Amino acid sequence: MPPEKPLTGEPALINALSRIFGPPPAAVAVGIGDDCAALAVAGPDYLLWTVDTLLEGVHFDLAYFSLSQLGYKALAVNLSDIAAMGGEPLYALLSLGWPQGRDPAGALALGEGLARTAGEFGVAVIGGDTVASPKGVMVTISLLGRVPKGEMLQRRGAKVGDRIYVTGPLGEAAAGLEMLKRGAALEPGLQESLAQAHLAPQPQLRAGRILAGERLASALIDLSDGVATDLGHVCRASGVGGRIPAETAPVSLRVLAAAPLMSLDPLDLALKGGEDYQLLFTSPPEKAAALFQAFEQAGLPRPLPLGEIIPGAGVWLATPEGEKEISGEGFDHFRLDL
Amino acid sequence: MPPEKPLTGEPALINALSRIFGPPPAAVAVGIGDDCAALAVAGPDYLLWTVDTLLEGVHFDLAYFSLSQLGYKALAVNLSDIAAMGGEPLYALLSLGWPQGRDPAGALALGEGLARTAGEFGVAVIGGDTVASPKGVMVTISLLGRVPKGEMLQRRGAKVGDRIYVTGPLGEAAAGLEMLKRGAALEPGLQESLAQAHLAPQPQLRAGRILAGERLASALIDLSDGVATDLGHVCRASGVGGRIPAETAPVSLRVLAAAPLMSLDPLDLALKGGEDYQLLFTSPPEKAAALFQAFEQAGLPRPLPLGEIIPGAGVWLATPEGEKEISGEGFDHFRLDL
Repeated sequence: MPPEKPLTGEPALINALSRIFGPPPAAVAVGIGDDCAALAVAGPDYLLWTVDTLLEGVHFDLAYFSLSQLGYKALAVNLSDIAAMGGEPLYALLSLGWPQGRDPAGALALGEGLARTAGEFGVAVIGGDTVASPKGVMVTISLLGRVPKGEMLQRRGAKVGDRIYVTGPLGEAAAGLEMLKRGAALEPGLQESLAQAHLAPQPQLRAGRILAGERLASALIDLSDGVATDLGHVCRASGVGGRIPAETAPVSLRVLAAAPLMSLDPLDLALKGGEDYQLLFTSPPEKAAALFQAFEQAGLPRPLPLGEIIPGAGVWLATPEGEKEISGEGFDHFRLDL
Repeated sequence: MPPEKPLTGEPALINALSRIFGPPPAAVAVGIGDDCAALAVAGPDYLLWTVDTLLEGVHFDLAYFSLSQLGYKALAVNLSDIAAMGGEPLYALLSLGWPQGRDPAGALALGEGLARTAGEFGVAVIGGDTVASPKGVMVTISLLGRVPKGEMLQRRGAKVGDRIYVTGPLGEAAAGLEMLKRGAALEPGLQESLAQAHLAPQPQLRAGRILAGERLASALIDLSDGVATDLGHVCRASGVGGRIPAETAPVSLRVLAAAPLMSLDPLDLALKGGEDYQLLFTSPPEKAAALFQAFEQAGLPRPLPLGEIIPGAGVWLATPEGEKEISGEGFDHFRLDL
């Protein structure tokens, strides 16, 4: 296998900023480069802390997002970061950019969607700020959560021989986004499910807690930028490679049904499409039985095998024609070299 | 005095959102409506938590801001919120929106300005996210700090008869902004000082710690939106009014010099201009000697008297012609009725 490609785009920007900000102080258990920062300030728990921004025209289009749905999703993507450390969410701050001319009732609808989601997941929204935005709506959420110190899971920790799993079938959010962008009309049940996958992804908090609390995973991340990118993060942080057999990749049946109708490749949607917000984790083969049992007992769907951790680096897609490197082929805001 | 005007604009939006989000849980000592949220999760201290966003075209113009200065200011305005609770800053997350076409070296320059400021104030930048921005640069900082539980100061707590002080002369940031926007040429020393007041405000962390640690203040806020608005927040939170004698208002001498050259009213700049990021606090008259002594011992400038707390509501400007209500006449992003 050739050496891993040089970093470009968002990882390169984050790496460069990380060097500028330097190493964190001792009370910071996890700094830049994971789903959350983790702080030793709260007794037996780490305090988990994350921030994520959604921008109109980049992350959402109000042509097909209601403001209430946007309030939901802005919190959900942050909840997913807490899930990706095995944690439990606690508190949120909202920084809302609202265009001056636009009806402020929309800001309240967004707030109501956010409040409803917060209530569902036991989160209290306890502050923030509001600013006039020159262009579109901007929603930044900063979220605090906690995880017992001995249980926290990170991107690093995957070992050669570990199996790679995801908590649900892949590609629905990307297929839903394509469908919404094109205004494609599909069979109603299919259309609704794919739209929901993009508009209202379910943060996998219960799955994250089980993986962490029962020590069933060696590394954990959430799928925000797609398997190719996010498994790439796990591999880089763990100093290993990942191998995905294309033929058994857990592509959603809905994606298999919808992709041909939109002339899209279902495997591309599943592995390179972003925003599924499922969890991707690695786990030693000997824990497979305990893993499946724990999910079954919790009433959660059985985790789906995606591939295995191999020596080396990078994410490799194995097809009958051979193996090719796909890391970094997921969604990236910044296609640039630094 | 007539009853206080109905709330419009940003306070109304925040009030409405606050009702939607509901009361905070017991572990939240301070929720929506102060400079920071305060959480009882860290032993003898409250954890202070704030988030603030700066948007290109709203909060800054890169025609006169260097990206390094922007990195400074984005952190400084958040540090000021920690100062406004009497706290000490600890950790920061950065959410950076960067336009896709723009040179990424600028993002690193911004990061370097932020890192330098963080180092100066003992803050570690430990994470965040980066997104492509459709329009201009967006910088959101979320900051955590701490304050001993018995020492925390809030907007509420001002009592009738308390004196009102500010930690420095008023109006320089607003005069500087006007000067920069107009490209006005003033005497070089004056020009540089006013520009710095807008570009690089000094968060008053040491003053905040003294006021809190030595129990010298009854209420505290930072001046982000101007005295008329921010003293209005203190009065509303405390159930009192504020009276400012126009003739003795601590208008900066630099503002008195520069305002006529730009056909501006120095008192307006001082009381209604935003972004001075001085602290405004109330303190009982009997603590005046201890207050001045504490600041002198710390090598800080003596706090400047601004006025007094009176019964009733609202912020009243006393001139030889009579008294008029000015609360809410500071900067407000949202001139709207909800």
